[in-house]
Amino acid sequence: MRLIVIGGDAAGMSAASQARRRLKPGELEIVAFERGDFTSYSACGIPYWVGGLVDGPDALIARDPATHRENGIEIHTGHEVTGIDLAARTVTVRSANGTRTEDFDQLVYATGASPIRPGWADTPAQGIFGVQTLGDGAALQEWLPGRRTAVVIGAGYIGVEMAEALQRRGLRVTLVERAEQPMSIIDPDMGTLVADAIRGLGIDLRTGVTVEALETAGGRVSAVVTDDGVLPADVVVLGLGVRPDTALADAAGLPLGATGGLATDLRQRVTGPDGIVEGVWAAGDCTQVTHLVSGRPMHLPLGTHANKQGRVAGINIGGGYATFPGVIGTGITKICDLEVARTGLSSREAEAAGFQFVTATVESTNRAGYMPGAVPMTVKVIAERDTGLLLGAQIVGRTEAAKRIDAFAVAVWNRMTVTDMTALDLGYAPPYAPVWDPVLIAARKATEAAEAR
Amino acid sequence: MRLIVIGGDAAGMSAASQARRRLKPGELEIVAFERGDFTSYSACGIPYWVGGLVDGPDALIARDPATHRENGIEIHTGHEVTGIDLAARTVTVRSANGTRTEDFDQLVYATGASPIRPGWADTPAQGIFGVQTLGDGAALQEWLPGRRTAVVIGAGYIGVEMAEALQRRGLRVTLVERAEQPMSIIDPDMGTLVADAIRGLGIDLRTGVTVEALETAGGRVSAVVTDDGVLPADVVVLGLGVRPDTALADAAGLPLGATGGLATDLRQRVTGPDGIVEGVWAAGDCTQVTHLVSGRPMHLPLGTHANKQGRVAGINIGGGYATFPGVIGTGITKICDLEVARTGLSSREAEAAGFQFVTATVESTNRAGYMPGAVPMTVKVIAERDTGLLLGAQIVGRTEAAKRIDAFAVAVWNRMTVTDMTALDLGYAPPYAPVWDPVLIAARKATEAAEAR
Repeated sequence: MRLIVIGGDAAGMSAASQARRRLKPGELEIVAFERGDFTSYSACGIPYWVGGLVDGPDALIARDPATHRENGIEIHTGHEVTGIDLAARTVTVRSANGTRTEDFDQLVYATGASPIRPGWADTPAQGIFGVQTLGDGAALQEWLPGRRTAVVIGAGYIGVEMAEALQRRGLRVTLVERAEQPMSIIDPDMGTLVADAIRGLGIDLRTGVTVEALETAGGRVSAVVTDDGVLPADVVVLGLGVRPDTALADAAGLPLGATGGLATDLRQRVTGPDGIVEGVWAAGDCTQVTHLVSGRPMHLPLGTHANKQGRVAGINIGGGYATFPGVIGTGITKICDLEVARTGLSSREAEAAGFQFVTATVESTNRAGYMPGAVPMTVKVIAERDTGLLLGAQIVGRTEAAKRIDAFAVAVWNRMTVTDMTALDLGYAPPYAPVWDPVLIAARKATEAAEAR
Repeated sequence: MRLIVIGGDAAGMSAASQARRRLKPGELEIVAFERGDFTSYSACGIPYWVGGLVDGPDALIARDPATHRENGIEIHTGHEVTGIDLAARTVTVRSANGTRTEDFDQLVYATGASPIRPGWADTPAQGIFGVQTLGDGAALQEWLPGRRTAVVIGAGYIGVEMAEALQRRGLRVTLVERAEQPMSIIDPDMGTLVADAIRGLGIDLRTGVTVEALETAGGRVSAVVTDDGVLPADVVVLGLGVRPDTALADAAGLPLGATGGLATDLRQRVTGPDGIVEGVWAAGDCTQVTHLVSGRPMHLPLGTHANKQGRVAGINIGGGYATFPGVIGTGITKICDLEVARTGLSSREAEAAGFQFVTATVESTNRAGYMPGAVPMTVKVIAERDTGLLLGAQIVGRTEAAKRIDAFAVAVWNRMTVTDMTALDLGYAPPYAPVWDPVLIAARKATEAAEAR
């Protein structure tokens, strides 16, 4: 048996590693192709590398090609798969040495995602960067010395993190967002707290602003033209989200899901209108996932999902059994010392999914109010009307805030009601929580809001 | 209608406050008696007050008597209820002004708990302290100036916290524990990490040591006699646990539970072999609770439970509906910068409950390994054999560790299996977690352990 893995990052190499743990080289040959230079790295760490908090790129690499080879995985970097022939069970691979064809019995498709580049971003100029691969990070790092002004376009997780990183590197940073608030993955009232923190860093945050074009000079980007004026820019970072890299899959006739990502079953087998595509697996940012609260498919590229999906694919390829049921949209980030977290559905997402709901927002503290280091924390809960089903939660705080979302995440996962949540036995000690944990206070207030309807 | 509340701390005053929110003074008269001077305080904060981190006692008081009166609750401090006549629906109250009788229609029994005092602790001498009431804290504070040596007896939560506090105050501290490890609420392998931290503070930790007597001189304690030698002590702190204060209930003929605490139904109505005792409620450290994993009654005094139980009693007294289903034994504490947490059952408790189980222990980090501030964290998971049901978890780490127990706590609460847990969508970003959160890594390893059996 021969397994070919397309894509050498988290999803692909997790699949390869798990399959290798279960099957010996004599039972399963594993060959992976990565078009870039790096394997199994943390793209999420790029902002901290750019910001100078982390020495990259090596620190961001969990397993380099040599380690994979030691583990019995044949990995080829600088090799791009350019075609898949499902009938012939072959892939075409291009490298510096030319093009060749390779056979497979099983195929893992793990090509990841690419930054969304609107028409104006196709300007052929230097200084325009996505932040999707370690190669992107390396290119940006090489470009940065001597640059003075940066414009980051899009104020989602990566945009906000990159704006802070570039600011930290000493550049004058403008962060442009089309919506009226940064971080539209959280509710507007919570987003206001984030906007304040971004501006507090000295970043010029411009919301409700649309980018129209890039200006260039001498083959380099020089400014970003917006409906709010022209912003000088030696560096432009695209934080407009990503889309699944599925061109190769599409060309091969693999079915794509409604969101443009590959649809899979619970075991990560590629699935289409005609059922499962035998022997073809997909994992990571190139796939779509099911949101377990809305029940809808969505594209939610995130390293933690990619790792889990890859692991699940690899266990199944190896003859074991594991499933990836879906996601609930948990996300956390840090802006300077502001911690931001969410899980489940935001108000807008709950609305779009068809839920009627109540919300409750509470101000509490990370520790007992009398303890040194006690600082405020805002917690918002979204619960279905009548049933009180917990639909989502958001947290913004200064310290020891973000990971509190996990209690909500496990509660959402288990379809708890906010009333049930009021009885939860969460950790209490004065250095860690008020006697009523902020999670519990929010659940209480949401219970009252649900009752009061 | 007239409600009498016995005990003015968390449980009693939460009940009073919730009843008051739902019923106007014309509908329900509320009278509370507290034998001490303080109401609604955080006894859990006493170690931090003693250690000089918190200005007490005022900071530890959530609501003083004046605030309760403003809220329409008649509260009398310095008033001890000395008898309950269930047939006549009266209580006898003693104060500096003498003894009187008061009528009630509804009664909330919330007398709390008292430190366990073995025979040797009954020595009539100054310098011996429990740490159960704010009055205890005040007495200790008054005693401390000029003292040089302290012996803390019992290395559970309160003993360890008090040992650190006294050390911080500059005393030479010995911590004596009869068991072979401190913190026997966690497994011995995890307890070793705690022992190291305690010794690292310069505290003389002596495990496997039994106290035999106290020596006194001039009416003051002077030493603790153990089977390991005589330990000089200007101060002795009792950290041997507490027992429910139920003497008054017992004398009145109220039924006691198997653990010595008052047994209640889900709504906190006192319950005995003959059913519910009409109009009599109990909440807080004087009650027993149900452990939802073992299914057994237990005495688990903790402020967070007392507050919840009081709230539930008050809502029901006020004509609403709320329940307190039980506990799962979540507990966290801090020793210097070591964070310790547990939930569910320890190995010993799982054994005692009759479970057969596997354990898995993993070493991970609080943040992505490459981030500044990433430090080790040890996570242990206990899961039922065959089913993989999560029975309990323990965490020891240096920072951002303890509150991670909440994810396990919500998982235990919802009776998740460790296999289910591997798919959990927990918060991931490099400043907060490795791409595989320690919780998930532990769940994975426990799943493998369960499979490997």
